[in-house]
Amino acid sequence: MSLDDLLQGVRTRDWEALDSGTLRLAIIGLGWWTRQQAIPAIQASEFCEATVAVSSSHEKANDTVEATPTITTGLTYDEFVAGEATDEYDAVYICTPNALHLPYAEAAAEHDKAVLCEKPVEATLERAEELVDATEDVPLMVAYRMQTDPQVRLMRDLVAEGAIGEPVAVHGHMGQQMLDFVSGDPDQWRLNPDLAGYGATVMDLGIYPLNTARFVLGTDPVSVTAQMHSEDEAFRDVPDQHATFTIEFDDGTYAACTASQHSHLSGHLRFVGTEGELLLEPTFLGESPQTLTYRTMNGREVELDDGRRDVFADEMTEEFDYFADHVLREEPLTPDGDHALVDMRALAAIYEAAETGQEVDLDSL
Amino acid sequence: MSLDDLLQGVRTRDWEALDSGTLRLAIIGLGWWTRQQAIPAIQASEFCEATVAVSSSHEKANDTVEATPTITTGLTYDEFVAGEATDEYDAVYICTPNALHLPYAEAAAEHDKAVLCEKPVEATLERAEELVDATEDVPLMVAYRMQTDPQVRLMRDLVAEGAIGEPVAVHGHMGQQMLDFVSGDPDQWRLNPDLAGYGATVMDLGIYPLNTARFVLGTDPVSVTAQMHSEDEAFRDVPDQHATFTIEFDDGTYAACTASQHSHLSGHLRFVGTEGELLLEPTFLGESPQTLTYRTMNGREVELDDGRRDVFADEMTEEFDYFADHVLREEPLTPDGDHALVDMRALAAIYEAAETGQEVDLDSL
Repeated sequence: MSLDDLLQGVRTRDWEALDSGTLRLAIIGLGWWTRQQAIPAIQASEFCEATVAVSSSHEKANDTVEATPTITTGLTYDEFVAGEATDEYDAVYICTPNALHLPYAEAAAEHDKAVLCEKPVEATLERAEELVDATEDVPLMVAYRMQTDPQVRLMRDLVAEGAIGEPVAVHGHMGQQMLDFVSGDPDQWRLNPDLAGYGATVMDLGIYPLNTARFVLGTDPVSVTAQMHSEDEAFRDVPDQHATFTIEFDDGTYAACTASQHSHLSGHLRFVGTEGELLLEPTFLGESPQTLTYRTMNGREVELDDGRRDVFADEMTEEFDYFADHVLREEPLTPDGDHALVDMRALAAIYEAAETGQEVDLDSL
Repeated sequence: MSLDDLLQGVRTRDWEALDSGTLRLAIIGLGWWTRQQAIPAIQASEFCEATVAVSSSHEKANDTVEATPTITTGLTYDEFVAGEATDEYDAVYICTPNALHLPYAEAAAEHDKAVLCEKPVEATLERAEELVDATEDVPLMVAYRMQTDPQVRLMRDLVAEGAIGEPVAVHGHMGQQMLDFVSGDPDQWRLNPDLAGYGATVMDLGIYPLNTARFVLGTDPVSVTAQMHSEDEAFRDVPDQHATFTIEFDDGTYAACTASQHSHLSGHLRFVGTEGELLLEPTFLGESPQTLTYRTMNGREVELDDGRRDVFADEMTEEFDYFADHVLREEPLTPDGDHALVDMRALAAIYEAAETGQEVDLDSL
C-alpha cells in the first residue's frame, strides 16, 4: 500500500480471516481491569465469549457470574488448576498479579487450552522463561493491546513504508496517579515485589513505550540505561515510583522514555526520523480521541483521528478477536512468548541498570 | 500573578527597565548564524547597535561592514585581541567555534568590555572555567536564547505557580540535518573535536533541552546516563551523530532527551507533573508558530500561540535587548558564567556516561 493510501485513513483488521466462530474463554483473575475493561471488550467481540470466571473465592467468582450473562461457571483458582469445568472453555485469559501468571498458564497448558496472558508475561525473566517453556504445546499470546490498535498498526506500516525516512529517536511516556486510580481496589499488589516482580512502574507502564516502539520499528532492544527512585511511603518496597530509561535498538534508533505511578494521567509516543515524524497522543491510557499526527520535513502535516471514542474498549476487543481468529484458525499468534521474553530481558536490564548505574546489554542477561 | 492571569496570554519583557540607551557591540565571528540571525536581531533591537565586525580576514569582516549600515569597522581577530577600535564598542558578542570563545572573551575582558558569549560557553569544562575566571571583572552573559523567549518564561512562571503540580518528567528533543543545513558554509567545525569540544550533537543541540529544562524547573542536574553513536563518515571524529540521555534533577524530576544532527528538523519540550502537563512544540529551531499547550488532569486544555511568526528573530532580539538593558543599568546578568558552568559539567558528564557506560554524578567532575 502506498504512503498516500495509508494516510487516507486508519484501516481495521488487516489480520481477520474468520467468517464466524466462537472461542470460549475462562477469565482468570477478576480485578478492576478484568471487570471494567476485559469482560465488556469480550462481550463486544465477534469471536470470543466469556464462559468461566476464576478468582480467589467462590463469592468473588460468582459476583462476576451473576453480572455477566454468558459466564455460567465460577471457579476458585484451585478448582481451575484441578481441571474443573474444562469442557466449558477453549482458552484462558490470565489477568492476575504478574507472579501468578506462571501457575495458571501451566495449568491451562495441562488442560490443553490456548493462553492469552497479560503483560508483563511474568514477574521475572526466569519465571517468564518457565512460563514460555510450560506453554510450548499450546497457543500462547501475550496481551500487548497496543499491537492490535489500528493506529499503532498504521504507524508500523508508515514507518516500514519510509514515511519518516530512517527512524532516529523515539520518545515515550506513560504516567498515572496509581494510588488514586486503584483506591478501594486490591491492585496494590503492584507495590509488592513478590507479586509484581522487579518494580511497580516500568513493569506496569514503562513496558508500553518499550513494546510499542519495538512493534512499530520492527526492531529489538540491545542495551539500556535507567534512573529511578521512589519518594512516597507507599512505594517503599519498589524502586520505581518514577523512572526514566533509554534504549538502543538494533537498528541504532534510541528511545528516551519516562514512566510514573505518581503523575498526571498522560501518555504519548513519538517517532522522529530523518525525513519526518509520527506522534500518537494521547495514548496507552485509553484517553479518546487518540490522535496520530504525521509531519514531514517539507511542512506536510496530517492528523488522523480515526473516530474511535473509546480507545480502551476498542483495543481490547481487537485483541480478543485477533486471539480468537488465530486460535480458531490454528494460525501462529503474535506477540508470542519469545517476543515477550525479549521485553522481560529488557525490563530486567532496565532495573539492573538503575540499580548498578551501568548501561546493561540485554545479551548479558 | 495567578494561574488564570498567566494563561490570559504571553507577557513580554518582564525584565525591561530601561527607557532608552544604546549598547554598541563588536561582533566576533561572522558565520551563518551571525550574519543571518544575530545581526538582523540586533538591528531590530531597541538597545543594541552592531558597530564593529571581527573575523579571520579583513575581506570577510569588510563584507559585513558593507552589508550592515551601523557597522563601520572591520577587524581581524588579531587586531581585536590587540585592542584596536576599543572606543567603538561597549560590549562583544562572541559567536565563533566553541574553542575560540576563551581567547576572545579574555581579550574582551582585557579591554574592559561586557561579554555576550554563545553557548556552550566553551569546548570543555576546563576551558569554560578558564573563561569564567578570565571574565570575572566584566559582565558575562551566556547566550541561551530560550531563556528570553516569552513562552519559555511563561512556562517557568506556570511551573512555579503550581500549574502542573510537582514536576515529574521532562521530554526534550532537538534534531536537524546538519550536513544539509550548513552546506557551502564552513560550519563543519562542529565535526572537529579541537573546535567543538566533546562532540557535535549534545554540545550543539542537546544543550537546548538540558538548559531550558533547568530554567523552567528552576533546578540543577545531579546525574546523567547517556547513549550515543555516529554512523556516517562525516561524523567519524565525534561520538554523537545521534544521542540520547537522561538527567536527574535535584528535585527528583527526570529528563529524557534525544538529539541528532541527522534527523528531520524537529524540536519539542514537554513537562509532565502530578497535576498537568506543558508542551512547547515546535521549539528550539525557530519554526513558527511556536505553540504552548497546557493540559490538566481534569481535561482542561489551553493552547497559547502568542502570534509570533519569526520565533528565531524574536528570541534573539529579546536576548540582545535583555543583555543591553542589564549591562547599561549595571544589573546582574543571567544566565551568567556560573550557570553555564553547570551545563558544561552536565555536558562533560553526558559524554563520559556514554563513553564509560556508567551513570555519572556531576559532583564527580
